[in-house]
Amino acid sequence: MRTLIKNIDILTMDDNQTRYENACILIEDDEIRFVGNLSDLQADIQYDKIEDGEGKLALPGLINTHTHVAMTLFRGYANDLPLMEWLSQKIWPVEDRLSEGDAYWLSLLAMAEMIRGGVTTFADMYMFMEETALAVEQSGMRGVLARGLQGPDEKSGLRLEENRRLWQNWQGRGNGRIRVMVGPHAIYTCQPSFLLESKELAQELEVGIHIHLSETGKEVEDSKKKYGKSPVRHLYDLGLLDGHVLAAHCVHLSEEDMDILEEKDVKVAHCPASNLKLGSGIAPIADMIKRGITVSLGTDGAASNNNLSIMKEMSLAGLISKGIKEEPTLIPAITSLQMATYNGAKALALEDSVGSLAPGKKADIILINTQQPHYYPHTDWANHLVYSGYSSDIDSVWVNGKKLMDNRELLTIDLDKVYFEVNKIYKRIMEE
Amino acid sequence: MRTLIKNIDILTMDDNQTRYENACILIEDDEIRFVGNLSDLQADIQYDKIEDGEGKLALPGLINTHTHVAMTLFRGYANDLPLMEWLSQKIWPVEDRLSEGDAYWLSLLAMAEMIRGGVTTFADMYMFMEETALAVEQSGMRGVLARGLQGPDEKSGLRLEENRRLWQNWQGRGNGRIRVMVGPHAIYTCQPSFLLESKELAQELEVGIHIHLSETGKEVEDSKKKYGKSPVRHLYDLGLLDGHVLAAHCVHLSEEDMDILEEKDVKVAHCPASNLKLGSGIAPIADMIKRGITVSLGTDGAASNNNLSIMKEMSLAGLISKGIKEEPTLIPAITSLQMATYNGAKALALEDSVGSLAPGKKADIILINTQQPHYYPHTDWANHLVYSGYSSDIDSVWVNGKKLMDNRELLTIDLDKVYFEVNKIYKRIMEE
Repeated sequence: MRTLIKNIDILTMDDNQTRYENACILIEDDEIRFVGNLSDLQADIQYDKIEDGEGKLALPGLINTHTHVAMTLFRGYANDLPLMEWLSQKIWPVEDRLSEGDAYWLSLLAMAEMIRGGVTTFADMYMFMEETALAVEQSGMRGVLARGLQGPDEKSGLRLEENRRLWQNWQGRGNGRIRVMVGPHAIYTCQPSFLLESKELAQELEVGIHIHLSETGKEVEDSKKKYGKSPVRHLYDLGLLDGHVLAAHCVHLSEEDMDILEEKDVKVAHCPASNLKLGSGIAPIADMIKRGITVSLGTDGAASNNNLSIMKEMSLAGLISKGIKEEPTLIPAITSLQMATYNGAKALALEDSVGSLAPGKKADIILINTQQPHYYPHTDWANHLVYSGYSSDIDSVWVNGKKLMDNRELLTIDLDKVYFEVNKIYKRIMEE
Repeated sequence: MRTLIKNIDILTMDDNQTRYENACILIEDDEIRFVGNLSDLQADIQYDKIEDGEGKLALPGLINTHTHVAMTLFRGYANDLPLMEWLSQKIWPVEDRLSEGDAYWLSLLAMAEMIRGGVTTFADMYMFMEETALAVEQSGMRGVLARGLQGPDEKSGLRLEENRRLWQNWQGRGNGRIRVMVGPHAIYTCQPSFLLESKELAQELEVGIHIHLSETGKEVEDSKKKYGKSPVRHLYDLGLLDGHVLAAHCVHLSEEDMDILEEKDVKVAHCPASNLKLGSGIAPIADMIKRGITVSLGTDGAASNNNLSIMKEMSLAGLISKGIKEEPTLIPAITSLQMATYNGAKALALEDSVGSLAPGKKADIILINTQQPHYYPHTDWANHLVYSGYSSDIDSVWVNGKKLMDNRELLTIDLDKVYFEVNKIYKRIMEE
């Protein structure tokens, strides 16, 4: 199966930031075969399908490196509260009411929103992950899934076992679209002994660790009181940072913390909207990027954002870095785009297969409709995308060579059915 | 002409924050006649048109209290620079190349974007304002227009005269949709004697003053060096704050400055995206709001934003206030919505006619399409709008009882013609 997308402007997001105007992309089965000018493409190739990209811009699919998709249930619930109060008094009590089957529909709702916003890959950490995995398989997205772990307590062994089973049942499924990580929640929910158990599981399965890290000032203070050191240093000393680690938030960091993140090549999921909305603070991403630390972008869950738009996070990442330091030259637009694409792939150890448009990579491609007032005049695509663009500008989405959205119509998810089921769950859990 | 919008959820944004579910709005000619439950509406009324609001939410039109619409030409041009360098080395030189007729098309482009984003009223300060006025008349929007003034220099008398002529030719035109203010640019471009001339003109025309104020730390420093006081105090001592004053930005304020803004009832146009992007800083709006100062929202021009989305400014206003002070309880969503609607009307001295949905007010109404994943589950509309919403969620727009957009189709602006003309202008000015 060969599809040619022609007459299209392209930001490849490759190492050279190659750009094309009025060029083409050739997709063969699940891979990209060619990116460039039509005149450079072998003339005698037969295509099964030709798409006209006139008035559109192609980018690699956006990558959301930290979310909790099933939390769409709590969108707009319990706002304007600090993290710990919000978690312990509002979110955790209602989470306990989630039943089998709920997470499937709630995950599909999130995936509908993400596909419509050009997100092709996401990393998740939550409960009921096999239901989320099923939703990933069916939606056609790429998902990197971890069972959220806390402990030790009477259920922590079970949770570890669920993470192992998630790997056994789903690793590599959906033609390789599904990957598994191990998800110790945070240093304030996991004791050192349990963090070590999580690490052992990650080593056993040969996968990475996805963890919340230094999200709030309180987390850092408490860590200093309890362990006499910062959360980053605490993990370092436990050996938790020795393998592939995806650390969400990283808001409150000392210079020593950043030294450690740099030394250990820890991948950071920067979640500006959630950090701002919960009053957690503003992560020093300009400093991290200067050190060469891989900073990617995450939305966090819909409960604390309240949407799942990586377009919005791109814009916020640049704006708040410039604003808070009063340095308008920080984080140029292309850097924000890089965080949302190639750095996202690196953060998930998927940079060999996704994150840029190049021959041999998986065909995770999005088309942006630039025939809209906020994209005129047509000057600098990177700036237009980051500072003028919205998630709703995404016109079409392919993942692994399969089209998931066409002209904003979702092709793999029945939205009316999802709305119906989510409403039922909402009534049962939130209005009882 | 009577139109009934039925089966609609409503946030009136009136003083009591009245909300309705599955209710209706009756429009008669240019006014709102009724807002509430259909059962409370007189039964024997005849309608010329009935609109089904199922799956939509009605709000008063959004109000953009500080922009420069004709600057759409510079969208995405010269990014990542500080304000003064950006203005003097990049923007001012290309502005000099604008010719007669250009501002009309560039303004129409901005209005197309604003209508698509639910903005029904905007306040502008720039050159070629009669062309912008013509575009307002034709687009059907509500515009509060000021000629940007600098001086004294050899052209400053001419500029004042243009502001007077703008008033003579356009005040009240378009069935009252067009209003004029006087637009002294800022204290760093207007000498005290010229500020006083501007004030005299405003008094003569019985209109307000629209000015940039305390936008950057540098403006404040320079003012202290030159006048021995802050920009706010400088204007106060000159008597410039005695009438209706719309002050854009107000980023760098002392407690004494805020005392003055409070005492003089100065209306603030908070422009978070532009302030962040230019690295100007973050305005202390939580403090201003606590004092009862009227804080409204502006996008600033497309050159420094880079879009004209009040939905985005609503979100930013709340997020950055919470984030920078690490206080998630600051600026609840309803406050952001209020800034974007009723406070906008107050800032422009239009609160008797627009800014909320109530009988007797002008019919400036927007409908939001809530049948989208990012609005599910349907819980708290204010939170959904501010933290999940995008400009593209706006489905329909009325101004003064006339429909300007239907199901996202613009009814008063020929977009293809606008794109064509803007491209021509861009090629002539920016690519020569």
